[in-house]
Amino acid sequence: MKKRYLYAPGPTTIPERVLAATAHPLVHHRFEDFARVYESVVNGLKMVMQTQNDIIMLTGSGTAGMEATVANLLSPGDRALVVRGGHFGERWSSICRAYGVSVKPIDVEWGRAVNPKLVEQRLKEAEGSEIKAVFTTLVETSTGVVNDTEGIGAVVRDSNAVLVVDTVAGLGGENYLADEWGVDVTVGACQKCLMTPPGLSFISLSEKAWKLVPNSKSPRYYFDFTTAREKGAANGTLFTPAIGLFFGLAEALKMIEEEGLEHVYRRHELLARACRAAVQAMGLQIFPLNPANVLSAISVPDKIDGVELSKHLRDHYGITFGGGQGQLKGKVLRIGHMGYFDKFDLITSIAALEMALRDKGFILDLSVGVRAAQEILIGE
Amino acid sequence: MKKRYLYAPGPTTIPERVLAATAHPLVHHRFEDFARVYESVVNGLKMVMQTQNDIIMLTGSGTAGMEATVANLLSPGDRALVVRGGHFGERWSSICRAYGVSVKPIDVEWGRAVNPKLVEQRLKEAEGSEIKAVFTTLVETSTGVVNDTEGIGAVVRDSNAVLVVDTVAGLGGENYLADEWGVDVTVGACQKCLMTPPGLSFISLSEKAWKLVPNSKSPRYYFDFTTAREKGAANGTLFTPAIGLFFGLAEALKMIEEEGLEHVYRRHELLARACRAAVQAMGLQIFPLNPANVLSAISVPDKIDGVELSKHLRDHYGITFGGGQGQLKGKVLRIGHMGYFDKFDLITSIAALEMALRDKGFILDLSVGVRAAQEILIGE
Repeated sequence: MKKRYLYAPGPTTIPERVLAATAHPLVHHRFEDFARVYESVVNGLKMVMQTQNDIIMLTGSGTAGMEATVANLLSPGDRALVVRGGHFGERWSSICRAYGVSVKPIDVEWGRAVNPKLVEQRLKEAEGSEIKAVFTTLVETSTGVVNDTEGIGAVVRDSNAVLVVDTVAGLGGENYLADEWGVDVTVGACQKCLMTPPGLSFISLSEKAWKLVPNSKSPRYYFDFTTAREKGAANGTLFTPAIGLFFGLAEALKMIEEEGLEHVYRRHELLARACRAAVQAMGLQIFPLNPANVLSAISVPDKIDGVELSKHLRDHYGITFGGGQGQLKGKVLRIGHMGYFDKFDLITSIAALEMALRDKGFILDLSVGVRAAQEILIGE
Repeated sequence: MKKRYLYAPGPTTIPERVLAATAHPLVHHRFEDFARVYESVVNGLKMVMQTQNDIIMLTGSGTAGMEATVANLLSPGDRALVVRGGHFGERWSSICRAYGVSVKPIDVEWGRAVNPKLVEQRLKEAEGSEIKAVFTTLVETSTGVVNDTEGIGAVVRDSNAVLVVDTVAGLGGENYLADEWGVDVTVGACQKCLMTPPGLSFISLSEKAWKLVPNSKSPRYYFDFTTAREKGAANGTLFTPAIGLFFGLAEALKMIEEEGLEHVYRRHELLARACRAAVQAMGLQIFPLNPANVLSAISVPDKIDGVELSKHLRDHYGITFGGGQGQLKGKVLRIGHMGYFDKFDLITSIAALEMALRDKGFILDLSVGVRAAQEILIGE
């Protein structure tokens, strides 16, 4: 018997009661049974997004939600600012370009958060040539950075541009107040902090964002927000949705409500703090300067191949962490301490990392990281 | 206690072992565990499609697969023939138009199959102005019609056009031989005869179809076949897939393999025959002239409101059939005898229909339909 531990920064381990809920016998999506589940999902998402805005539900990955946003808001030739400080910022820019949008990149060194003042400056520089949207990322999973969405919101709010935030990796784990911070469009997905098997994406839109929709000339049908909004008002989805995943997400959102969103945030903050202390005690470094609470990207020591280390952890110890993406391939290991993850999952993660590092020739005292984590987690 | 029976023509009742499989603990989609499931799904789909071609897997509804096909094959201004004999033929045409494709409709009276000779004639008429694709539907779920895909294939095969078939409702229940019949693109989804909760769509493409892909100027990112093919070759998907549904679909395809595809077809043919006999014995009529084996669209007697009848069946007897769509709203009732549906599901369907019709004032002897079905099902 080898137990398996899925500690990647998404998809994440699914709570047993959510797995059981996804296996609910099917109900037809055009009748009351589904309408009830749909409504509870939408209300739960409004709670975690902290928004009063409409929410569009899509069957698809987070990327589907990102693409749907670009297709509904922008036309070929429109201008957009895109914050790029990692793999997922780059994805915004790739999608925009696929739709003929003129991208003004704000490139940020990987591992750093964007400075909201830089966004403000770029918006000012562009005055005259209208920027229709600013695209950014709450948690850049590839680098482990959390961006200052509140600060960005404060500078975008008074411009003509809408602020679009990819929250796929942070929503439900990282502090987030869509309406209060002036976020116009929040794009999320169910498989990270929201503890549901992948397959659902969702988008909330402010009235400022809705005003762009009728003017977009980009082709879309499956992704069309206007028709989706009409159906959504009747507690349904435009096309046959992933019904089982709606049952799962409703259950996961109920768990978040039971724990309390504030407590969920505190738990993630505590786990992040314990992970960082353990990493430091082991003589390693956290890669980003602005680390998120939902994952830790850890720099792999110079003489060790990060790809080999990940593989050893997975094959020998049954532990799946995230590896490095893009320019960080082989250079970082990412522990997703998000969603259905508690203090003993962190202890397991650190203990396994210590053992695997020793196996690969890195000199460290076993348990130094574990002990540092325990010091923070004890009594909590 | 009220037991619920989902007898709609999709989504359909999911076998218990498939539901259990969808609740499999998550595995990460970039490693071997998922690659095995992915491979078994793709191989199983090739078996039910009877194709050797590549298959692209998408997380999304059947409509997502339809849209992806249009976006990857055609550019604005391209010409396409679209067979329209119901709601789903019309969907092809709506999607094509959303992408600026010039649609030449072949309109067929609802309830009839398209005559392949008509397709041949339209292809000839268009000579000179090149038709890039012919879009059709294996089973038009809205009318209960099965089209003669073999006949259409025979006339499209020698033209420059690719033949695209929406098999969402028929695949795995209706006889279908993609390669032998000369089908270039088969679009399917998992929630009908394939007995899996909705959320996965898939597309097979012939080399003739692949040749169109690099020339398409339509924007796409989530739906892009070229990058999806590269990932697929490595037994993976481009973006985080609906992992749980892959486990479910693999299990459902295994059930089809265990029963044997030929036996699956015979079962559907038998159920359809029994249903038609029952309908006739009850003094009702099957709506389509060319009825499919996977569902029966039954004309609702003149004096009875089909919407009311459906609602009564659902609310009072716990039975969900499909109602009428578009111009057939209130005029037909559709029994989906597809997928995880056996002879006693048919008996239940017919018995409930008899009881509900009597409740609504229709004069008939209880059990006349049941008996007619039994006569056909006995001994089988």
